[in-house]
Order: sequence, then structure tokens, then C-alpha cells
Amino acid sequence: MRQAGRSLPEYRAARAGTAMLDSCLDPALASELTLQPVRRHGVDAGIFFSDIVVPLRLVGVDVEIKPGVGPVIADPVRTADDVARLRDLGPLTAERLAPVAEGVALTVAALGTTPLIGFAGAPFTLAAYLVEGGPSRDHLAARTLMHADPAVWDDLLTWAADVTGTFLRAQVEAGTSAAQLFDSWAGSLSLADYEARVAPASARALGHVRDLGVRTVHFGTGTSELLVAMRDVGADVVGVDHRLPLDEAVRRLGGTTPVQGNIDPALLFAPWPVLEAHVRDVLARGAGAPGHVVNLGHGVPPETDPDVLTRVVRLVHDVEVGEA
Amino acid sequence: MRQAGRSLPEYRAARAGTAMLDSCLDPALASELTLQPVRRHGVDAGIFFSDIVVPLRLVGVDVEIKPGVGPVIADPVRTADDVARLRDLGPLTAERLAPVAEGVALTVAALGTTPLIGFAGAPFTLAAYLVEGGPSRDHLAARTLMHADPAVWDDLLTWAADVTGTFLRAQVEAGTSAAQLFDSWAGSLSLADYEARVAPASARALGHVRDLGVRTVHFGTGTSELLVAMRDVGADVVGVDHRLPLDEAVRRLGGTTPVQGNIDPALLFAPWPVLEAHVRDVLARGAGAPGHVVNLGHGVPPETDPDVLTRVVRLVHDVEVGEA
Repeated sequence: MRQAGRSLPEYRAARAGTAMLDSCLDPALASELTLQPVRRHGVDAGIFFSDIVVPLRLVGVDVEIKPGVGPVIADPVRTADDVARLRDLGPLTAERLAPVAEGVALTVAALGTTPLIGFAGAPFTLAAYLVEGGPSRDHLAARTLMHADPAVWDDLLTWAADVTGTFLRAQVEAGTSAAQLFDSWAGSLSLADYEARVAPASARALGHVRDLGVRTVHFGTGTSELLVAMRDVGADVVGVDHRLPLDEAVRRLGGTTPVQGNIDPALLFAPWPVLEAHVRDVLARGAGAPGHVVNLGHGVPPETDPDVLTRVVRLVHDVEVGEA
Repeated sequence: MRQAGRSLPEYRAARAGTAMLDSCLDPALASELTLQPVRRHGVDAGIFFSDIVVPLRLVGVDVEIKPGVGPVIADPVRTADDVARLRDLGPLTAERLAPVAEGVALTVAALGTTPLIGFAGAPFTLAAYLVEGGPSRDHLAARTLMHADPAVWDDLLTWAADVTGTFLRAQVEAGTSAAQLFDSWAGSLSLADYEARVAPASARALGHVRDLGVRTVHFGTGTSELLVAMRDVGADVVGVDHRLPLDEAVRRLGGTTPVQGNIDPALLFAPWPVLEAHVRDVLARGAGAPGHVVNLGHGVPPETDPDVLTRVVRLVHDVEVGEA
């Protein structure tokens, strides 16, 4: 469950006084923040505590995460010169990646037999932040650049693919058992734009970890129309948000692709019988898939009651062992 | 083109010093703001200058539109008592609606043979604002209430349907030639939730104008999966945003439903040849529909160059008369 930490009092205590990106780059702290929800909820895997803009910070982009806002980029990227400026920052070397690799290694050691999943943003979502300068509703400036100057767009996405792919590879090399690519904003795209202007870069990003032999998961929201395309960039597992029933997602994917997610975060605030019925429905609809990574369809809302998450995990485990 | 005004210098001059909702409720000003983009761009119809929360303000809900934020509701609605408090405000009487009716009548008189389209929010989008207390990304609180307390949810949506339907009816009775229902946030819903928990209220809202014999248009974004359901609440025309090619939307609708929209607002900022090719593609894909209300797939971004909008309108007219 991504972003499960922020609903925990122990998370808020450990993070107090430390900026988000500084937390991600403090190996001991990032490891502790990764472990907290695993300890608390007894989930079957952890996901490394990070942010999609971490590789931007590591390569020297002036970015910070403003509380209540999100990532803010000091100098938005909109021209060929802007992309050249990014390239001038040089590659994401092992030296720059050291805090991430160290954080992952510490976490893997502490987790023992529990697997850890690596975390990186997809090129489109990274580019959307870089072009907009921060979060936006419709990613208009990014989508404009995509059409207005396809060469600059492709250059930017290629750069982003290599930076984020290198970031993901460092995590896998440091010991993660799987790698997840987050395309949080892909749902703003038509299938045609996704396939022509985004998918090649996402394939390039995933290409950075292909030889390492770990499974890859491709996450998006509002991407009911993009599931097949998101798999076909080379992902082993495709994320499905609450908008599409899991059996329909499995059908669209041809019945041969494992799926992830689908539990509606909004239901975490409903009375338990309502949430329980929803979780059981998701599990039943996912039973026909060749694999279902049970998860929320989106991140954990900060105001979630942690005990509810623990109860959901227990329910899923009970159903798995045949209690149902 | 909805929200075309805000890109115009004459709009900013006319609105200067007047709060958004006050502008909507000043008949002469609302009329002038409606007419400005019609005059400037030579479009084939106007859409009445308003906001979806206008009927809430008219009925006595404490709501304002904060610049750069959107509608903010002083007392969010989350319980049966909260809904009872809304009902205690009484119905949206003709007296309360007088400024709207007067604004429409002035506009219709000024427009002459150019038709005017009435404007109202759909119950779900209104309820999302009422429950959240303002704009939100995923409408979590609204979607929680929908499942956590279906009776309160249904009561709230029924109330919203009657208020917004009455608001729409007043505009039609004052002379609009069509009526458009805006469900801006419906794209956050699964089809199952839309059909079970939202569609009946949208049908009820549209029911308020059914006997008046005008065409109804049902607008949404991110609603590629909901088009048929949005038609089946009783709409004559269904809006399609930039995410789905218009020929595919027409196919999903069975080939018998007129469509609206589909021009990508992001392309308004691209070089003219790119935008022109996009508009021509949209027109070609819409040619197989039993009607296409040519329009953007979403509102006009405030930073749009008005001359570009004028040029798009001219292009559409040229193609219509066979120049292509």
C-alpha cells in the first residue's frame, strides 16, 4: 500500500522536522519509514519510501516538495535549451545514487524474507511536473509541448526515461525483488497520444531493469482505456484503479496478465461491513486473473485510520487461506 | 465554448472588482459576459454565463468562489442533519431565481437569432462540492458518503437534482434554446457507481426541463467509460473530451446520438498548423455522428489567446461550408 506511512503516528514522529526529499535521501530514515507500515500492517511486501522526483533532485534539478502542494520545480522545462540544461547536469551516477542504494540495502536486510518493491515515476509523469513546474489538473502545458514541439518532447521524455530507469535499476541492484513504475498522470492522455508520445519512453525506462530478472508493475489511475498499452511497454503486472471492475480489467488484458490494486481508497472511510464487502468483491473479481497483487487502486489517504488498513490486510490473508 | 470569456480582456475589464457569484447574479453583467465571446468569435450559440453553484447561493447555501481555488462551501454536508439543513432552506422559488431569469431574457433579446444554451451542474458534481467543502482531486469524501450512507447520499442527490433542475428550468423558461448539464467530476466514478448512485439523480435533474421541448446536452470529462450511461439519463447530446476519438465515441453510443466537444484545449497553445490539423481531424471523425456540436472537450484555459479561438471558429465554419 503506497503512501501507507503518512497515515501512521510513528511516521509523522519520525519525519518531524525533515523535508520530504531529505527523508528520502537519508538511508536510515528512508529505511525506517519503509519498514513502519510493513511492521504495523503485516503486509506481504514493502515498497521503498521515495518520491518520483528523487532522481531529479539527485541529478541536480532544483526541486522541492511543498507540503500540501507537491513537487515544485524552480525552472520549468519547455524548450530545447531547457532540455539541454537538464542534459548538462550529467548522468545519474552510482555516486549520486548512493543514498538510495544504501537505503534499499538497509531495508532489504531488515525485511528478511519479506520482499521489497522498487519505486520510480514514469517519464510522462516526471515530464508533466518538469513542464508544468508543479502539480496541475489537466497537465495542459505538458500536453501542449507534446504536440507543439514533438522533438523537444521526445528528447525530454528520453532524458526522463534514462534518469528514472537508472534510479529504478539502482534499487533493484541494491536488492529489491520487484520494480514499480508510477505513471500517476497517464490518465489525462488519449490512447493515441499515450501510444505515440509516451509509451516508447516508458518502455525505455523499464528497459533499464529488464536484464535484472525482476517483475515489473506499471501503475496508473484513470487508465481504464490504457491498460493494454501500459502492459505492452514491457510490464509484467498492470495496476487498475477503482474505476474498472477487476474482472473487466483482466478481460481487457486478455486474461494472461497479472493485475494490481482495485480497492477504492474512498471505502477506507466507510463502516467496516461496507469496506469488507468491497474487499471481498475485489478479491472475487481478481480470482480469475493469473495473479492479483492485492492493493488499493491509489495511495493511502493521509487521514486513514491505520487500524482499518491492518484489518483489511488481515481480511485479505484470511480469504487467501480459505476462510471465506 | 464554455469559459471562453475569461481569456478576453473585455471580460476581465467588465468583471474587475466584482466577485464571480455576484457577476452571475447581476442580470446586465451576466448578459454582457455571455455576449462578449459570441461577439468576438462569431460562434453559432452562446452559453449563459453562470456557475454550477449559483443555485446553491440562490437557495441560501453559504458558498463563494475563491479566485484560484474554486467554490468553497462554509459548512460541508455529510450527515442526515446536514441534508435536513439544506431542505430547511426551502425551494428555489421564482423570486429567488429572478436575477437568472432576467439575465437570460436580456441575453436572448440581445442575441436575436443566435441561440442561447442554459447551464447547470449535475447533482453528483454539486454534491461533491457540498460534501468536500470545495474542489478536490478524487472526491474521496463524496465517494465515501455514497457508500457509507446510501440513504443520506440519495437524499442529498435528490435535493441537488431538484435545485439544479429548477435552476435549469428557469433558464429555459426565460428563453434558452437548449439546456446543458455539467457533471465535471463524474469521471472519478466507476460505471457501476455512476449507474447505481448518480444516474437516477441526473435523470431527475433533466426531468425538470423535459416537458419544455428543448434539447439537452450532458457534459463530462474523463467519462469515456460512461458515455452510454450519461445519455441514458435522458440527454439528447453527450459531451466527449479529448481522451476518446469522436468516431469511437459515436460507435460506443450506437451511432444514433449526437455528440459535443472533443477539441483538446492543450492544442490551443500549439502552432496553428498543429491545431488546424487537430480540428480537422475532430471534424472528420465527428462527420459520422448524427450531429456534432463542435466545441472544446473542456473549458477554455484562461491564458488562451482569443485570436486563436476566433481562428478555430472560422476554420470550423469554412469546413462546414465545404471549403475543405
